[in-house]
Amino acid sequence: MISRILAADLPTHVGSHVRLAGWLHRRRELKSVSFLVMRDRSGLAQIVLREPVQLAEETVVEVTGTVAANPQAPGGAELVDPVIEVLSSPVESPPFDLYRPVVAGALPTVLDHAPVALRHPRLRAPFEIAAAGVAGFRAALDGLGFVETSTPKIVASATESGANVFGIDYFGKPAFLAQSPQFFKQALVGVFERVYEVGPVFRAEPHDTARHLAQYTSLDAELGFIHDHRDIMAVLTHALTGMHAAVTERAGTATALLEIDVPKVPEEIPAIHFTDAQELLARHTSEDPRGEPDLAPAHERWLGEWALREHGSEFLFVTGYPMAKRPFYTHPDPARPEYSRSFDLLFRGLELVTGGQRLHLHADYVTALAGRGEDPEAYRGYLKAFAHGMPPHGGFAIGLERWTSRLTGAANIRQTTLFPRDLHRLSP
Amino acid sequence: MISRILAADLPTHVGSHVRLAGWLHRRRELKSVSFLVMRDRSGLAQIVLREPVQLAEETVVEVTGTVAANPQAPGGAELVDPVIEVLSSPVESPPFDLYRPVVAGALPTVLDHAPVALRHPRLRAPFEIAAAGVAGFRAALDGLGFVETSTPKIVASATESGANVFGIDYFGKPAFLAQSPQFFKQALVGVFERVYEVGPVFRAEPHDTARHLAQYTSLDAELGFIHDHRDIMAVLTHALTGMHAAVTERAGTATALLEIDVPKVPEEIPAIHFTDAQELLARHTSEDPRGEPDLAPAHERWLGEWALREHGSEFLFVTGYPMAKRPFYTHPDPARPEYSRSFDLLFRGLELVTGGQRLHLHADYVTALAGRGEDPEAYRGYLKAFAHGMPPHGGFAIGLERWTSRLTGAANIRQTTLFPRDLHRLSP
Repeated sequence: MISRILAADLPTHVGSHVRLAGWLHRRRELKSVSFLVMRDRSGLAQIVLREPVQLAEETVVEVTGTVAANPQAPGGAELVDPVIEVLSSPVESPPFDLYRPVVAGALPTVLDHAPVALRHPRLRAPFEIAAAGVAGFRAALDGLGFVETSTPKIVASATESGANVFGIDYFGKPAFLAQSPQFFKQALVGVFERVYEVGPVFRAEPHDTARHLAQYTSLDAELGFIHDHRDIMAVLTHALTGMHAAVTERAGTATALLEIDVPKVPEEIPAIHFTDAQELLARHTSEDPRGEPDLAPAHERWLGEWALREHGSEFLFVTGYPMAKRPFYTHPDPARPEYSRSFDLLFRGLELVTGGQRLHLHADYVTALAGRGEDPEAYRGYLKAFAHGMPPHGGFAIGLERWTSRLTGAANIRQTTLFPRDLHRLSP
Repeated sequence: MISRILAADLPTHVGSHVRLAGWLHRRRELKSVSFLVMRDRSGLAQIVLREPVQLAEETVVEVTGTVAANPQAPGGAELVDPVIEVLSSPVESPPFDLYRPVVAGALPTVLDHAPVALRHPRLRAPFEIAAAGVAGFRAALDGLGFVETSTPKIVASATESGANVFGIDYFGKPAFLAQSPQFFKQALVGVFERVYEVGPVFRAEPHDTARHLAQYTSLDAELGFIHDHRDIMAVLTHALTGMHAAVTERAGTATALLEIDVPKVPEEIPAIHFTDAQELLARHTSEDPRGEPDLAPAHERWLGEWALREHGSEFLFVTGYPMAKRPFYTHPDPARPEYSRSFDLLFRGLELVTGGQRLHLHADYVTALAGRGEDPEAYRGYLKAFAHGMPPHGGFAIGLERWTSRLTGAANIRQTTLFPRDLHRLSP
């Protein structure tokens, strides 16, 4: 049997006898001729029929035939004199036509039928971009000597805040799904100095919004022997540069299909201190946010536009957020202890990444927890790493689905999640 | 400030003034001279003191000094005239000496103190090997056009068997932790044709053994348009070859430290049918397993030795396991329907991988479920993908910790798991 070739490779096989395999994407019957359009993982192939066939869309077929040049066919080549073998016939029709340029179904319908809906090239494309981005993230950090790790998703206590944690019955004992690998990645700085993890994190988000998920993929990194948060920002910039480069390199078909530009990550992403950002907003907008402990979404949008206008950058670091709004493990700015050595990275006016320097001295943890009225004893396992000598360190976490969603312009984060989990959705 | 260099780079900086940073691994006081041995992620560096210092092991230090050649020092170079700055002091001593060649603690003690125990170079090494292996797995499959995916770990029903599943409270509704991405990866063959996922899977294993974990990392792959299970075996062989090559290439320090050989994966791994394996065992051992539906661990060990003796291979495929012992989605061998198109891969006489061809026709699933007394309605979401046309497909899953454990010769799988979760262990 001759080897299978992909639809995208037809143009380089003109004159040859080849075998294709894929899904019947569309039938087209014109007055004088009938076509099948077959879809495989590489794209579409046009097949010219001698006589019409009665096959339903999504029938899985294997087609042998001869490749002929035809400037009117997609890619400039088509298959003629085909012999079609049916590998599998659908028993149900898709809830919407997969061959139309845009899916006609509403988002809930699309999500309910994800196994078939995702076959639509435009719905599939974001995930090819996500896969490329993750590969770029890993390659960038591997190049800096990071070690990839796998840490527990079942934990004895909440890592971030007790509010949005899923409970689990662990052999009769209460346990929780990890909201982040925060404590583990910090402990592992003591082992590998530089670690990253790409894995699921869980948030029992009671909010039914376009940007909250109960499970998402977190790209976590943590590194030791830093001077301050700016070393983290430099590594993050490097990682994002790798992600965007990998998308350009590996997901060109998907970005072309979605007609999106992959923005260049500046060599140095502009950064503004939280207080300076508030000053800017007070001076140039009708609001005066000075004194507030955080930035409102509208402020982030304004700052995003400002960064593009003033610095030509779609990215902006906001640094030095007030300690009051950051987790207890955040390192304060020694010069202004009410502000932190942390940052958010805004991408097109929306928070994409949070990161910063962490405390590294055992005594500082005990003080910080006590200052927030928390019992250090509850954090005993976590504090152990710091009892044994930890270097100054910090890290960041990128939400993969959020990044993909920003990059592709998706209106809802569920469009960049294969099988989203939320307040109302537990299947498929 | 001069840039930090790593301990391993000392020999290439003889005569230079450099900065090192790491943990005080050991102090050595001889009659005429005192040394510090500093540990960083690359290895150890010897520092010659002008006068003894009183610093505890695991103190985090930054040391500037001049590199001097010394054939007696590790790597042939050491740091002289050092200026030591303490970055962080431990407040507790490790439960065992990290500088001894082998850790003196029993496994439970080691696991209880994982954040500090893993700093021991021999305990850390398996995870450098694991990270390299995963990178090799991905590179091999990326090269074959696979797409990496992230699928839900919270599911509405058990994927493998109801027996060892963790229950979870999902916004007031019962849900479960995914025992495998099996159903998702099959559905995604309909989308991407070839997918893989590296992620956590969860088993509420009631067995407290040296090879069971409640969470492990599964390297899952699935691909469509196959002829039969042998196409899966070829992809698995390619993936393993990539994993072993990556270990040799990227984790040389770790394999040297553990003094392990990374076995070459044969271009074609020998394969034996289940019934032929039973014949062999009946002929050459004192047992007669013919008629049994599975192989006992002792049989697998014997077959592993046989493969090494007869084929010079540390790997052996056993194919065609009886359908009775395989999950309902397994594809039967059309020529002998009581046997399957599935396989196990034995590595050094122990099962490392399970895989095979799956059913792909909707009607076959309905029949298979009914034949096992299961209600197809309970699998409605899963069966949806097959209702819309699926190609012949199959896949496999490698347990990462099990692979690392076999490769490094670890006696217990907990030695190749950063923070193991089991019947009795939920922290650290």
